[in-house]
Amino acid sequence: MFGEIRQLIGNSEAFPVLKNWTFFNHAGVCPLPAAAADAFRKYAGQAEERAYLFTGWYQDIEKLRHIAAELIGAHRDEIAFIKNTSEGLSIVANGIDWQWGDRIVTTAVEYPANVYPWMEQVRNRGVKLVTVPEIDDENGRRCVPVDRILQEAADERTRIVSLSHVEYASGQRHDLTKIGEFCRANNKLFCVDAIQTVGALPVDVKAMKIDYLSADGHKWMLGPEGAGIFYCRKELIERTRPIMVGWMNVVDAQNYGDINYTLRSDAQRFECGTYNVPGLLSLKAALELIQTARLGHVAQRIRELTDLMIEMLSKKGYQIVSPRDKWQWSGIVSFTSPRHEHKRLVAELRKEKKIEIALREGRLRASPHFYNTEDQVARLVEALPAH
Amino acid sequence: MFGEIRQLIGNSEAFPVLKNWTFFNHAGVCPLPAAAADAFRKYAGQAEERAYLFTGWYQDIEKLRHIAAELIGAHRDEIAFIKNTSEGLSIVANGIDWQWGDRIVTTAVEYPANVYPWMEQVRNRGVKLVTVPEIDDENGRRCVPVDRILQEAADERTRIVSLSHVEYASGQRHDLTKIGEFCRANNKLFCVDAIQTVGALPVDVKAMKIDYLSADGHKWMLGPEGAGIFYCRKELIERTRPIMVGWMNVVDAQNYGDINYTLRSDAQRFECGTYNVPGLLSLKAALELIQTARLGHVAQRIRELTDLMIEMLSKKGYQIVSPRDKWQWSGIVSFTSPRHEHKRLVAELRKEKKIEIALREGRLRASPHFYNTEDQVARLVEALPAH
Repeated sequence: MFGEIRQLIGNSEAFPVLKNWTFFNHAGVCPLPAAAADAFRKYAGQAEERAYLFTGWYQDIEKLRHIAAELIGAHRDEIAFIKNTSEGLSIVANGIDWQWGDRIVTTAVEYPANVYPWMEQVRNRGVKLVTVPEIDDENGRRCVPVDRILQEAADERTRIVSLSHVEYASGQRHDLTKIGEFCRANNKLFCVDAIQTVGALPVDVKAMKIDYLSADGHKWMLGPEGAGIFYCRKELIERTRPIMVGWMNVVDAQNYGDINYTLRSDAQRFECGTYNVPGLLSLKAALELIQTARLGHVAQRIRELTDLMIEMLSKKGYQIVSPRDKWQWSGIVSFTSPRHEHKRLVAELRKEKKIEIALREGRLRASPHFYNTEDQVARLVEALPAH
Repeated sequence: MFGEIRQLIGNSEAFPVLKNWTFFNHAGVCPLPAAAADAFRKYAGQAEERAYLFTGWYQDIEKLRHIAAELIGAHRDEIAFIKNTSEGLSIVANGIDWQWGDRIVTTAVEYPANVYPWMEQVRNRGVKLVTVPEIDDENGRRCVPVDRILQEAADERTRIVSLSHVEYASGQRHDLTKIGEFCRANNKLFCVDAIQTVGALPVDVKAMKIDYLSADGHKWMLGPEGAGIFYCRKELIERTRPIMVGWMNVVDAQNYGDINYTLRSDAQRFECGTYNVPGLLSLKAALELIQTARLGHVAQRIRELTDLMIEMLSKKGYQIVSPRDKWQWSGIVSFTSPRHEHKRLVAELRKEKKIEIALREGRLRASPHFYNTEDQVARLVEALPAH
């Protein structure tokens, strides 16, 4: 590792959680880096001493819009702030002018945030939800085959493909470029829940031909709960009806008494009202930290840590669930023990060893971020019982 | 004044803004009390040291639900958290099973958060929006007469009446009990934007026969931007379709892999996903402070300060716009100068005197909260130019 990231790895001033915890649940809810926590402290001091006066909050929020855009290869006009991923996915599901019989293609192993918004449209608009199942691959890892997704996408009634970039319980990463290119070429919409990648692995909405993307800040972006980003491709903004409207989605919004219901032509048309100011300020600080570390280095570091973890877990007799080839690896390592009760393992690690991992769909799940150390990976594997 | 509130008035430890500012824009965005700022600092410390582990955040958020319910006379099952008032009003506007030709009655002087959600339904569902205009009353104050509202409400095609409890630019408070009783008796829905009263003046959803209520926390509740409350009357919850769905609106939401799209039967059916945890923790601290001061005393205190302000402003030749009789007074004092340019006055007060008031619809607007002092009121009036 080289550059700024070297100073941040294992640095407990920048990442105070390192002092007491071996924290491997970034795929759940991350600890805040000191910079993101400092943003709350700064906001608190400003807000109590002078409310919004001379604070620069709105300039900072505009900077965040640019940072978020840059992080995923978008333009600032294509970025809206959302309270969570469910909001972003609901915007898409509600914003499309569905035709009776339209098909929505996803997988059978999605986090429910990428299921219920579509089921709501199945209920309301007579569309169909098609879910491609997960299977064992040739190495015994779990995955949803890209060919099966493309096969369903190809159906002439398929209107949209909506996928998690990385599946929460297997860690499988989908080949978005392949799927996105197919969708664009075949006039299908392509929507991505990128909560498990933005901040950890490269996401490029242009190269991947993504039409809509939603991602919460409280996982790999290292921000707080309650602040996320939504991307809508420029050409689709005016064709996507916002789900919620209020004082802010319109042109000249600050002119409160002039009722003129003209929606903005940029992605701010999806922002209905008052911002979560402190949450966005903290997210900005978190993303600046990732900028400092450089996303390419962050991804490389996560690859190294997860490779090491898998090697050590395998040696100890644990079964790896996550596919790891070039396109499919991610920051999520899902694994199982044929002998030990998972729930008890997770509880004991937390209570007795101050090691945090998660349990998802019968699998143990460890998700290190770039600042975790090799020693911590070794500590986890040592703490797990032998087979 | 008596009891706990006495210790809080003019107390710059509890309200650090008092040290440097005469802040009279609680109808805009409030400064945070120290307790609400401390909640952010505490969260920041916890989140950086141990993420969500052993923090009690979710118990605190449940307590907040009870506190918010108590504050407006509701049951905890009737409270959902929203990111802002526009979200709450959009939930109502979208959640009703409109019939072609249904009428929505409101005033012509609403804040746009209570206009555009209805205009969206006018566009989508062929309903009509009827706006009752503001007039001069017998004392030359501006108000929307309750009789005219009731007259429009009485139309057989009127489906819902949606009002701000207090109008943002005049400070007029509507007689919600009278309107609510009429609506309930005549089978009309009654929706209230209570952003300008909750935390300052009594709101009782049962006595006032309110069906839906939305209120942001960053004005009179003394909380941060980004966290508000939504009330839906128990009997209407299952008849109000949520606008956004995600992983959290359903029964057994934590069981991620078990896709069972059954919406909750309490108001949490309106909460689609991950909470703004820090914002809600801060709002809780703010509402606890208002509980400590006691809402009845808070309202009495605001009445005293605004009475004093009006008396002094009148003496100095300023024209009072806000109606002040028993039902109509509020924490907003709107006034005009026949001689001085308003925009310049506001800018000069801020820059040269560290006094903050607002300008709304050609009116100067001062909105003190209970902790402001008589001295501060005098300082404002002294700083204003004579006529």
